[in-house]
Amino acid sequence: MSAIPLPQIGAVPVERGDAARNRVLLLDAAALLVAERGVDAVTMDAVACRAGVGKGTVFRRFGNRSGLMQALLDHTERELQQAFMFGPPPLGPGAPPIERLIAFGRARIAMVEVQGEVLRAAENAPEYRFGGPARALGIAHVIGLLRGAGVEGDLDLLASALLAPLEASLVLHQVRDLGMTTERLAAGWEDLARRVTRC
Amino acid sequence: MSAIPLPQIGAVPVERGDAARNRVLLLDAAALLVAERGVDAVTMDAVACRAGVGKGTVFRRFGNRSGLMQALLDHTERELQQAFMFGPPPLGPGAPPIERLIAFGRARIAMVEVQGEVLRAAENAPEYRFGGPARALGIAHVIGLLRGAGVEGDLDLLASALLAPLEASLVLHQVRDLGMTTERLAAGWEDLARRVTRC
Repeated sequence: MSAIPLPQIGAVPVERGDAARNRVLLLDAAALLVAERGVDAVTMDAVACRAGVGKGTVFRRFGNRSGLMQALLDHTERELQQAFMFGPPPLGPGAPPIERLIAFGRARIAMVEVQGEVLRAAENAPEYRFGGPARALGIAHVIGLLRGAGVEGDLDLLASALLAPLEASLVLHQVRDLGMTTERLAAGWEDLARRVTRC
Repeated sequence: MSAIPLPQIGAVPVERGDAARNRVLLLDAAALLVAERGVDAVTMDAVACRAGVGKGTVFRRFGNRSGLMQALLDHTERELQQAFMFGPPPLGPGAPPIERLIAFGRARIAMVEVQGEVLRAAENAPEYRFGGPARALGIAHVIGLLRGAGVEGDLDLLASALLAPLEASLVLHQVRDLGMTTERLAAGWEDLARRVTRC
């Protein structure tokens, strides 16, 4: 089966065969380490050990730990991008805009639950936090849905306001420090989205 | 005239005479330095020089640069707290809740315009960002206004969602990187507040 290149922002060049499989193997190992032991446990050594490859392979692939974390983040973001651009409704095309918007908020909250520490680490790098391509695509997506739902006004700012409470740092604080459930956060965000769109 | 202690969160112990005047003198000098030359220009030396006192005075008062920045932030936050708790309407008591809410958003955006770099530096310390007393008081104030406006729902989360787009890091990004005016941001936040309260 041949891979069709998707017009994703931040997409890596197409890889073939072993290289692509190796990359996914290493990123899956890194994601498992984050889930099980937190982001600090993700060292080049630990990823190599977990994936059952030599340390040199990890260094050749990602350069350093920072490169590995960036790749892990891109991997996570691309999965969400693919889902909201090309996946099944309600997140993907085919559902009414307001339902897609609510599904988007829920998907981001669920993503923080799994990848929160990686996302928070990235948010603490200011150039990524607001300047990254993933954010630009998320804003554009939400603006499109607001327009599709017939919302009028300063859609740039409304989209930014809707994304602000979905930031990983805030969501992690609400879940870990305040003991809120992600279901409560998702219901709260749905309420916010319905108020903003007046639906 | 005797000072009446206000029940402000994070208030410093009451000081008298020279000590209090000295403190204000030093904080005003630090605030001017931030406004003129950015937060990095605020060193103990520069503040002493600007205030026309010896360096030892600054060290005795604030301990170190971190203590000085914290004091500067507390000073800024307390001014806003005093205004929304005890000041004239529409920010203070006496105006309808929705008008007070809108005034609160405008006041925070104006505060970022002046003290943005100090606030951003503080937000980058995670324990301050969500755990600080200033945030707790801001959330409580907004929840009270939402309740007063007859809004029903998960008011904790709605308040948190309303405060999220007012964070200094985001506002500075919108003003400096995206070239938005603070008037546009204030109008956008007012629109958000009216939608959320359905007013």
